[in-house]
Amino acid sequence: MNPTEWFTEQVPAAGTAFSLKIKNKLHEEQSEFQFLEMYETETFGNLMVIDGCTMVSTRDNFFYHEMMSHPALYTHPNPKTVWIIGGGDCGTLREVLKHPLVEHAVQIDIDERVTRLAEIYFPELCESNGDPRAELKFIDGIKWVKDAAPNSVDIIIVDSTDPVGPAEGLFSAAFYRDCAACLTENGMVIQQSESALLHLKLIGEMRDAMSSAGFGHLQTLFFPQCLYPSGWWSATIASKADLSKFREHDSANKPFETVYYNVDIHKASLAQPEFFKKAMALK
Amino acid sequence: MNPTEWFTEQVPAAGTAFSLKIKNKLHEEQSEFQFLEMYETETFGNLMVIDGCTMVSTRDNFFYHEMMSHPALYTHPNPKTVWIIGGGDCGTLREVLKHPLVEHAVQIDIDERVTRLAEIYFPELCESNGDPRAELKFIDGIKWVKDAAPNSVDIIIVDSTDPVGPAEGLFSAAFYRDCAACLTENGMVIQQSESALLHLKLIGEMRDAMSSAGFGHLQTLFFPQCLYPSGWWSATIASKADLSKFREHDSANKPFETVYYNVDIHKASLAQPEFFKKAMALK
Repeated sequence: MNPTEWFTEQVPAAGTAFSLKIKNKLHEEQSEFQFLEMYETETFGNLMVIDGCTMVSTRDNFFYHEMMSHPALYTHPNPKTVWIIGGGDCGTLREVLKHPLVEHAVQIDIDERVTRLAEIYFPELCESNGDPRAELKFIDGIKWVKDAAPNSVDIIIVDSTDPVGPAEGLFSAAFYRDCAACLTENGMVIQQSESALLHLKLIGEMRDAMSSAGFGHLQTLFFPQCLYPSGWWSATIASKADLSKFREHDSANKPFETVYYNVDIHKASLAQPEFFKKAMALK
Repeated sequence: MNPTEWFTEQVPAAGTAFSLKIKNKLHEEQSEFQFLEMYETETFGNLMVIDGCTMVSTRDNFFYHEMMSHPALYTHPNPKTVWIIGGGDCGTLREVLKHPLVEHAVQIDIDERVTRLAEIYFPELCESNGDPRAELKFIDGIKWVKDAAPNSVDIIIVDSTDPVGPAEGLFSAAFYRDCAACLTENGMVIQQSESALLHLKLIGEMRDAMSSAGFGHLQTLFFPQCLYPSGWWSATIASKADLSKFREHDSANKPFETVYYNVDIHKASLAQPEFFKKAMALK
């Protein structure tokens, strides 16, 4: 394949690669933290790439952003304060702010350039940035959580890059202990947890770290995500409170539009594949 | 990427490509019908490619073969006779024969070479070929169905390549009418129906063709399939009988092993994404 016509993300450990046909390279820069590239693709709209990894496309980001937000927000009984660690493209923030119960949503991404570029190349994801309930901070999310007061947040959404580079510390028991310390009584963390086909060991380690940090209730949910390795992604919710029920009536009567998520998809995302159940052995 | 190190399937209409790192090319031949290639990959075991499209890998075929079989077989009240149109790698046949109710399973693939190569490179998929209930025919599946007597089959599984080349006639109202004519009273067709992200129009046309052929009940189900474009695949069931219930108790107590499928996954696969519901508008 002609590398001027395709953007390719190789995943050496997985032995896979995924490519999108591109029309133009729109921008590239080395930020203080990461190498950022923007492309116009033939069929997926715009594409953001961070350190060589596909992050967001116009066409298919709805899977990820909706599934990182709505299942957790419809599981918490009354989510008033939500923090998004990472999520600099603002797509998760937009979904979170669709919930009328939310009074304050803070996006804490270490790299302001991700947001500034999203404002240009993904304006639709940034359309709620001016919401009076929204706050954007460009600081270290790990330190933010570490320094937070007890009982200060209902849901922490960890919307990060893969566990290498700046995001590595977000996949550790120390970080989860800091989360546990600042969450309210029914509080929860939800974190993207990679592919169950390709990264099963990582999911197991993440769940173990969450358990060891004092979260007695875990739930891994599954959804398609074409842009990410294997096309099948997951997120894991950790809570001290029971996760076996969600606000099903509210979900079925959601007062906003979605592209993928609905109450049936919420329930479906919780189904555990046979091999996953065995591998996790009720961890 | 070095083309001697990677096998790449480009999907020009979708503007995407998927690649697997290869160790060796094991075999290639032009059969009477198709160009067949076999590779040993770095991480996905063996790989079968037909006319340039990835068909089956050792590592991830379980998603497809299980989801093409078990949801339909646990929806039919008493599936005794099953035909598989296509399916020459024998993986669907193996799953079908796991069901004790099945008395006769006929695999009808036009290209005997696919099966002969599967016996060599995917022996685990062929392990039930000697089952006394199994019958392998290497003839035209379209003609087989057209010539069949009324009331001769409970489930027709259309496990074909994409709707170009030899499989094109399997995606037509004429074929579905022939299916309707030879199915028993509660009989059903299940057919792979591509990706809802990339091929939504095709799924709509397939459902319309199935309806026009006299099938009043349709159900599209969704599952991951890393090897196929977008990593997210679908199958569509068509029946003259109600499809709203399945043999849930039997599924929950299935007397065989699976890797992906279980009763919760069965229910989950039936959840209709918001955009899909809108696009199909209850077709």
